[in-house]
Amino acid sequence: MPAGLHPRTHLSKESIFSRMSRLAQQFGAVNLGQGFPSNPPPAFLLEAARRAIGVVDQYTPPIGLPRLREALAEDLQVAPENVVVTAGATEALHALAEALYGPGDEVVMFEPYFDVYIPQARLAGATPVLVPMRLEDRWQVDLSALEAAITPRTKAILLNSPYNPTGSIFSHEDLERIVALARQHDLWIVSDEVYDELYFEEAPTPLRQLAPERTFTVGSAGKRLEATGYRVGWIVTPPALAPLVAGMRQWSSFCSAAPLQAAVAEALPVARREGFYSALRSSYRSRRDLLARGLEGMGIQVFLPQGTYFLTAKFPGIEAETLVREARVAIIPGAAFYADHPAPEGLFRLAFCKKPDEIELALERLERYISVKR
Amino acid sequence: MPAGLHPRTHLSKESIFSRMSRLAQQFGAVNLGQGFPSNPPPAFLLEAARRAIGVVDQYTPPIGLPRLREALAEDLQVAPENVVVTAGATEALHALAEALYGPGDEVVMFEPYFDVYIPQARLAGATPVLVPMRLEDRWQVDLSALEAAITPRTKAILLNSPYNPTGSIFSHEDLERIVALARQHDLWIVSDEVYDELYFEEAPTPLRQLAPERTFTVGSAGKRLEATGYRVGWIVTPPALAPLVAGMRQWSSFCSAAPLQAAVAEALPVARREGFYSALRSSYRSRRDLLARGLEGMGIQVFLPQGTYFLTAKFPGIEAETLVREARVAIIPGAAFYADHPAPEGLFRLAFCKKPDEIELALERLERYISVKR
Ligand SMILES: Cc1ncc(COP(=O)(O)O)c(C=O)c1O
Ligand SMILES: Cc1ncc(COP(=O)(O)O)c(C=O)c1O
Repeated sequence: MPAGLHPRTHLSKESIFSRMSRLAQQFGAVNLGQGFPSNPPPAFLLEAARRAIGVVDQYTPPIGLPRLREALAEDLQVAPENVVVTAGATEALHALAEALYGPGDEVVMFEPYFDVYIPQARLAGATPVLVPMRLEDRWQVDLSALEAAITPRTKAILLNSPYNPTGSIFSHEDLERIVALARQHDLWIVSDEVYDELYFEEAPTPLRQLAPERTFTVGSAGKRLEATGYRVGWIVTPPALAPLVAGMRQWSSFCSAAPLQAAVAEALPVARREGFYSALRSSYRSRRDLLARGLEGMGIQVFLPQGTYFLTAKFPGIEAETLVREARVAIIPGAAFYADHPAPEGLFRLAFCKKPDEIELALERLERYISVKR
Repeated sequence: MPAGLHPRTHLSKESIFSRMSRLAQQFGAVNLGQGFPSNPPPAFLLEAARRAIGVVDQYTPPIGLPRLREALAEDLQVAPENVVVTAGATEALHALAEALYGPGDEVVMFEPYFDVYIPQARLAGATPVLVPMRLEDRWQVDLSALEAAITPRTKAILLNSPYNPTGSIFSHEDLERIVALARQHDLWIVSDEVYDELYFEEAPTPLRQLAPERTFTVGSAGKRLEATGYRVGWIVTPPALAPLVAGMRQWSSFCSAAPLQAAVAEALPVARREGFYSALRSSYRSRRDLLARGLEGMGIQVFLPQGTYFLTAKFPGIEAETLVREARVAIIPGAAFYADHPAPEGLFRLAFCKKPDEIELALERLERYISVKR
């Protein structure tokens, strides 16, 4: 065996999402763990993809297929020259970590955090600084804790709204205060908006509208169009920075899958025109309510999400790996989203991007399991 | 404007390949620059891709779709548990750079080098050490220069055979000496074998057969199956290291495009069974000969490649950016592949993965341009 691997490989581990999906399959569990939909993607996306196969098969520019950059610009109401296409939002966040911070720098983010944020910051050599959200009867951002976390080493604030796993949406007012802090301390903002179309009440404010000069918006066709396996994501950059960001992502995957870029370009205006997102929202709203009511009926405390397809709830005395084996329901332990502070006691995340009958089956199994345990 | 970007963004620049493709399009030039084929991918791949759309649409495990790992294992004669699927060979090389070296480490590679090697090494914080190939009437590896380049800081040797841009193939003997050096100094070997099926005489020896304990083999469905835009690549790892490498790549793109992984899984055994690779080889052999004879007819010195779809030649007194504008032929200047040493005078790389009539048109245009210049 040669001398060894680089110590940063300690960041390599199977994510809790992959692990729970694997266990779900192994034990025949209903998978309310990983955030991928049970529904197929919409027919207009599938047809566009089939048409692109055999037509758009070779390398595209790393910055993206021109027609996809234009479709995104149209959809997001931004200039096409500020759009970079990436291999999912994951690569978007990776490229931004490389472009924005390095050894000696800090990046402020909220806790619970989405799992890629910390390893990506560490791979870039930077230190993630976690500001815990407050959880009483609902999730709330603690702006004074955010302010206190900013130091002269801080380079960027990374936030996610609609927020996985909390399901909360930062209010327009909160965003304005965050922008004021970013301006005062001269920080970049990375705004992970992959669930931008998944809200149940008011539409979230795109952060770039409040601070176009410093905001990188991250998006995902996988989340928008129910095709998490297509690996088409994007970044909207502040003016003049798109070529630079594209020049970084070219070293990680060169370009996104060409026929799927073409398919997304064709699907985006159709989705908008045909009301696909509002149909999705009402279908997810009723699944959210189905799950929430079912859990509340068992006496479980639910924090009703305002957006995303995730719901957090408190199941005291339950353990996820036991649950998947014994109740055959896969859910994600809150601790998976906490690194610096303890997770709220008994917190779990449940994905409701699953078919109503899967949600019902999960509820039945949970009910049986919990009543036996009591 | 906020404080600024990380200094490593100096690594961000439009690659010469993207730039020449852009200029080729702008000036209506024949593009013998970037290495993507003019031919469409084979029908069996396209049909498999169309079938997978609507069936395999969601996240796969970061390590790869199980049936693709199995198909690769079968094709490459390795164990499926040592296979990791990546977003093209580009991401494979990126993940290996992160896994194998960091600040203070050196990675030895040959010059001319493929363009991602240096920025990927630098992103990982390591120092690339370049060993120049010798070019007289043909390209030759200088094993004593390789030996002299190894220091106590060296972690890995990165090599590419069949070799872009030289078209040369390391002999079995050369590989054995390289393996002996790697064993003596306890180094990893990263063997970029994306052109493994593109050889014109003897088949190249897969390096992993000589040193399975320390060799990471990198491959690409884009190159094998003429679909550079599908972004499906792979790594064969030494035993027990695949999960670790997969755990690194999950932070850059999470997984490769799911339906295209399924399509490649289906296409690989068909390609083998139906003799697709040998048909490809004979078609490329005749295009290589067409291009080489045409150039030699103009008095240009050609270094006939043993593999890949690239040919190097000496065009003294020519400048690539002038050529694309004035002769409307895009080719890549040798200097693009050199960082530490001067490129051989007048060296260019020409891609012949283009249709015979494109090659003929390029030859006509070159001939006219050169005869006017003389
Ligand atoms: C908040 C958040 N950001 C980014 C991602 C990654 O998205 P993609 O699948 O496009 O890489 C996810 C996926 O679950 C997510 O929840
Ligand atoms: C030697 C070599 N390695 C790696 C690659 C990247 O391959 P992929 O398109 O699969 O990322 C190329 C592409 O030209 C190449 O020539």
